Amino acid sequence: MRKMVKPESIALYVIKNIPLIRAGDNLGVIIANCIQKQDMLILDRDILVIAQKVVSRAENRMVLLSKVIPSQEANYLASKTRRDPRLCQLILDHSRVLYCNDKAIITQDRLGIVSTSAGIDRSNSDSPEGEIAILLPENPDLSARRVRDKIKEIMDVNVAVIISDSLGRPWREGSVGMAIGLAGIKAIEATEKRDLSGRVIHPEIALVDRVAAAASILMGEADEGYPVIIVRGINYTPSDTVKIRDLLRPAEEDQVWE
Amino acid sequence: MRKMVKPESIALYVIKNIPLIRAGDNLGVIIANCIQKQDMLILDRDILVIAQKVVSRAENRMVLLSKVIPSQEANYLASKTRRDPRLCQLILDHSRVLYCNDKAIITQDRLGIVSTSAGIDRSNSDSPEGEIAILLPENPDLSARRVRDKIKEIMDVNVAVIISDSLGRPWREGSVGMAIGLAGIKAIEATEKRDLSGRVIHPEIALVDRVAAAASILMGEADEGYPVIIVRGINYTPSDTVKIRDLLRPAEEDQVWE
Repeated sequence: MRKMVKPESIALYVIKNIPLIRAGDNLGVIIANCIQKQDMLILDRDILVIAQKVVSRAENRMVLLSKVIPSQEANYLASKTRRDPRLCQLILDHSRVLYCNDKAIITQDRLGIVSTSAGIDRSNSDSPEGEIAILLPENPDLSARRVRDKIKEIMDVNVAVIISDSLGRPWREGSVGMAIGLAGIKAIEATEKRDLSGRVIHPEIALVDRVAAAASILMGEADEGYPVIIVRGINYTPSDTVKIRDLLRPAEEDQVWE
Repeated sequence: MRKMVKPESIALYVIKNIPLIRAGDNLGVIIANCIQKQDMLILDRDILVIAQKVVSRAENRMVLLSKVIPSQEANYLASKTRRDPRLCQLILDHSRVLYCNDKAIITQDRLGIVSTSAGIDRSNSDSPEGEIAILLPENPDLSARRVRDKIKEIMDVNVAVIISDSLGRPWREGSVGMAIGLAGIKAIEATEKRDLSGRVIHPEIALVDRVAAAASILMGEADEGYPVIIVRGINYTPSDTVKIRDLLRPAEEDQVWE
């Protein structure tokens, strides 16, 4: 816990001309090249917010749907939710279904992230071999750290990295960018204030989710959007040991929220 | 639904020197004065994000806790949640309790907003008469519209206004700014993309919550923070008929989310 110095402005910039990312690409190298080629400013303590989808592409988390053979359970989930059985198989392979109806399949993945359809998305780009599903990165914290380390190596600047995804919320319409992988930035900041009984309490600020949400304004939703955003001016606490788990509550505990 | 033109940068600015807001103050006048006195730029299509607490103060939504007499039900809620019975009475007066444990009382208020403790907060400033609880504005959309109209009247600029509050989330630690009142900006933007079955779908973007989250980075949590933020560069859809309800899902429907 610390008293945060309050900045008076922040700014967010799109990194333009990021090429379509392919399996095996080194994202850190590509981002550094883009920044350098376009003479963009990048500073110590900037935060890079990177859309999950390009991280997944670089890490070859693409699955050809035609190669997925749905189990009986997947077929049942598909009929119940009016979805592609092969997609349902992937969802079952990569998450635990918390709840489903014909609108959404709410899942908790191996990382502890609660989202819909295990965060699995469809590629907007054509594939000669057929429809592609894109899974979340295997270890988004590690993905974030690799970009952070590569930017440091190439450009000698210390940035924090947030891998983000657009997620829905239980009681609100629409999606908002949230963090799913972190490097170099503490997940939660605690401030000090008094509660209604006058006791000093330490309300927790999900700073990385606020930053991911801000960046998601510029990103857009689909492949034609901007997958990498530079956020400048935020007073965050650096961390070399942060993990996305720091931000997540067990789903069990939260079932009480209804 | 429309295709959104994508801006390449956005910026957020604190409005400094906002005085401590008191009951009866005209927030629009105070904000316009602050902007003019400090020679700040304000432009058509800027978004003003205003912390709920200052709106509530201006609208005299303060309740002296010593004047609240807890009912039997409030006493029961207080013992179950280890909270002040008088606060529990206010929570019961202004919301429906969806769930509670010793960590939080999850409520849905008259407006449909799901939050904790009916969004009731404690004043950080001293009151000679004793402890003060601050309720949400009676009609935050109307509060937002009044500020928007006053800024238009005084400064001849068309801004959108978002009243925001820091809210918790079911499966994630920490709080994030979210909209609780809107004027001049559509709540949800829809884009166009293809789902996993190749069908064209229209994913919904909770733009106002993204903007509220971004502004909450600069606001800080307590009275010593910055209660009014100017957000510039966002391509939003103007709306004269928006209401916060557009953003909210009925709690009933969402009980299935656990």
